[in-house]
Amino acid sequence: MEMALSRPGLISLAAGFTDSDSLPVEDARQILNDLLRSRKTGRVALQYGSTQGEAILRNATAQRLAYLDGASDTDAAWSADRMIITNGSQQLLYLVSEVLCDPGDIVLLEDPTYFVYLGIVEALGLRARGIRIENDGLDPQRLDEALASLKRAGRLPRVKMLYAVTYFQNPTGITASLEKKRAILSLLRKYERSAGHPIYLVEDAAYRELRFSGEDVKSALAVPGAQDRVIYAGTYSKPFATGTRVGFGLLPEPVFTAVLRSKGNHDFGSSNLLQHLLARALLSGRYDRHVARLRKRYAAKAAVMRRAMEQHFPDSVEWAEPRGGLYFWARTPARLKTGTDSKLFQTALANEVLYVPGVLCYANDPERAKPDREMRISFGSASESDIRTGIARLGASLQELCG
Amino acid sequence: MEMALSRPGLISLAAGFTDSDSLPVEDARQILNDLLRSRKTGRVALQYGSTQGEAILRNATAQRLAYLDGASDTDAAWSADRMIITNGSQQLLYLVSEVLCDPGDIVLLEDPTYFVYLGIVEALGLRARGIRIENDGLDPQRLDEALASLKRAGRLPRVKMLYAVTYFQNPTGITASLEKKRAILSLLRKYERSAGHPIYLVEDAAYRELRFSGEDVKSALAVPGAQDRVIYAGTYSKPFATGTRVGFGLLPEPVFTAVLRSKGNHDFGSSNLLQHLLARALLSGRYDRHVARLRKRYAAKAAVMRRAMEQHFPDSVEWAEPRGGLYFWARTPARLKTGTDSKLFQTALANEVLYVPGVLCYANDPERAKPDREMRISFGSASESDIRTGIARLGASLQELCG
Repeated sequence: MEMALSRPGLISLAAGFTDSDSLPVEDARQILNDLLRSRKTGRVALQYGSTQGEAILRNATAQRLAYLDGASDTDAAWSADRMIITNGSQQLLYLVSEVLCDPGDIVLLEDPTYFVYLGIVEALGLRARGIRIENDGLDPQRLDEALASLKRAGRLPRVKMLYAVTYFQNPTGITASLEKKRAILSLLRKYERSAGHPIYLVEDAAYRELRFSGEDVKSALAVPGAQDRVIYAGTYSKPFATGTRVGFGLLPEPVFTAVLRSKGNHDFGSSNLLQHLLARALLSGRYDRHVARLRKRYAAKAAVMRRAMEQHFPDSVEWAEPRGGLYFWARTPARLKTGTDSKLFQTALANEVLYVPGVLCYANDPERAKPDREMRISFGSASESDIRTGIARLGASLQELCG
Repeated sequence: MEMALSRPGLISLAAGFTDSDSLPVEDARQILNDLLRSRKTGRVALQYGSTQGEAILRNATAQRLAYLDGASDTDAAWSADRMIITNGSQQLLYLVSEVLCDPGDIVLLEDPTYFVYLGIVEALGLRARGIRIENDGLDPQRLDEALASLKRAGRLPRVKMLYAVTYFQNPTGITASLEKKRAILSLLRKYERSAGHPIYLVEDAAYRELRFSGEDVKSALAVPGAQDRVIYAGTYSKPFATGTRVGFGLLPEPVFTAVLRSKGNHDFGSSNLLQHLLARALLSGRYDRHVARLRKRYAAKAAVMRRAMEQHFPDSVEWAEPRGGLYFWARTPARLKTGTDSKLFQTALANEVLYVPGVLCYANDPERAKPDREMRISFGSASESDIRTGIARLGASLQELCG
């Protein structure tokens, strides 16, 4: 893939990069200019901070989340005191997984899931159990079956967490309903006694703010009685600027304390300068205005991609229009594989277009074969013109092999 | 210590923070303003980069290091291709230790050493073997004895690396000579056959640029034939701005590839914006001018501390004047302990002054008792007036207990 990306004529609909044209260059310049014009605020921003992260950013973020979840900002679950700022939400996911799991433990996750998280699973020597995802989130019946099967096998003590990308999921674009979150948390709680310890839901909300139609869904923190089992991971990378790499997590005890200690060993705190940039973006209203513009932009790009897919994809290819995020997810007819060794992938490459093969988004799970009939197609970084041309090329490749 | 730090009247000579007054606030403002005034350069800075780090910063850093080491900038050991940008050098130290060592392995290190590194040792489940440090670096005879003893015990296979802070060491202020580095590398090589694998020297050069008298010493990369065994860790936090948290490492294969993969799992790359800030500081000459100012500033503060110690410390307390870095290291007379439970520490606290007890800088090593007669006293963040007052208070505490 890396080799392919260096080809000048290639259109990549694979990268998870965000839209470059709409990056908040002028917002960032003005905020940093103001921040550093005063020696007083400038010195704070350029000095070490704490391992946990700057209070100004944690407070603004916690208040925002409480507002989104319809909670009172005095509710302890949304308290800035239980928030840790990280280098993108990726670092939070790594730290949480490292702290909760021992090598050989089993992580429950969506089938398919965010493939970069699978790298963490592998790096930490963990095993994965994939649970089928439906149009409104993870299938509770399948989760129940998986937990029951693990219980029968005496392997429940190896289960510490379930990882789910709950908003405009990477790769499928699916958003989990609050009912599904409630059902998941209830099931995890049900099996805790047999596990002998808490089983946490790690809710990755990376794409939550990139919603361009429909209503926001409350986070799992809003499920009554579940706050001590939910780890909420968010980020400003996608909605503001990927070049800042500022993520955050809300964590219950004792996970909070363990992750904070681990963050101390990893790098003892993220850049103060970036944290002050984000805090000022939030407090000045620039962040909100930027996100509003960004949503319109992605809505337009998604519409361009939808129209191009309607025009160029064979009817036998299934796909749904996402309501947010950066991705379309498409399924080819039976027997038409999509993996890097497949005829389709090679034909697409010969036609100068790249997608992410769905098979890469499935964990290694001996319980099932990996589906190999799907594609993640991103409208995030490609221009509208490249989206049109790229989809036409991919459509031609599909027509060639379906026809 | 944390509780103590919140007392308003307390003067902390403990923190490893840098001087706030000399932070490059105006430099950073102008650089960021220029960077973000152009949409073209602004977009690059605000978009994702690579896991390895931006080429512009790696090239500038590699050239600078080659120059400092008197090497040709075409020499492979100083190639930007083998450099990885990290969140402070702390993250590099963590990643290298994680990649090289398995739980239960033994890290060789200086006695005393950088206490935050001891947190990494503990977090990764490693054991430490402390080697006595002399006025020009680690004692090769003691290192030889330790390695021979480990060999006899059949434990050499558990030794993968030696960690040393080679410039104005934290906490002692000692700089290792090139001869010492050569001797260390030669000893590590000598025992490699019995170990059954390479033993790396991890050279932490965090304070290298904070030299205010004497000549720069070449890094261990300049020892002929040793480049495939040296991991060089540097940072822009201390010499430019701690709020940026930009560190870097030069690594030989196969460590480079393993650390890059691990960095990918931890956070898949550091903030591009900060990397472009540092690259422009280097390329514009602002960094050099800032470091020159900073050296003068620390030289002045160190001189203030020296004069205050000459005036207030009893003759029975031993200390030497550092030629760089942020710390004085002082040794009390026999039987006068300095640890947090000691009379001295408590008296100093009652007198509203805080230092780092030397005992915290020694690894847990069952082979020897931890010395408890030393203090790390920092002139980094305290003002000149606070240095004078703080040393007077500490001197009074010492006089009280020595007298």
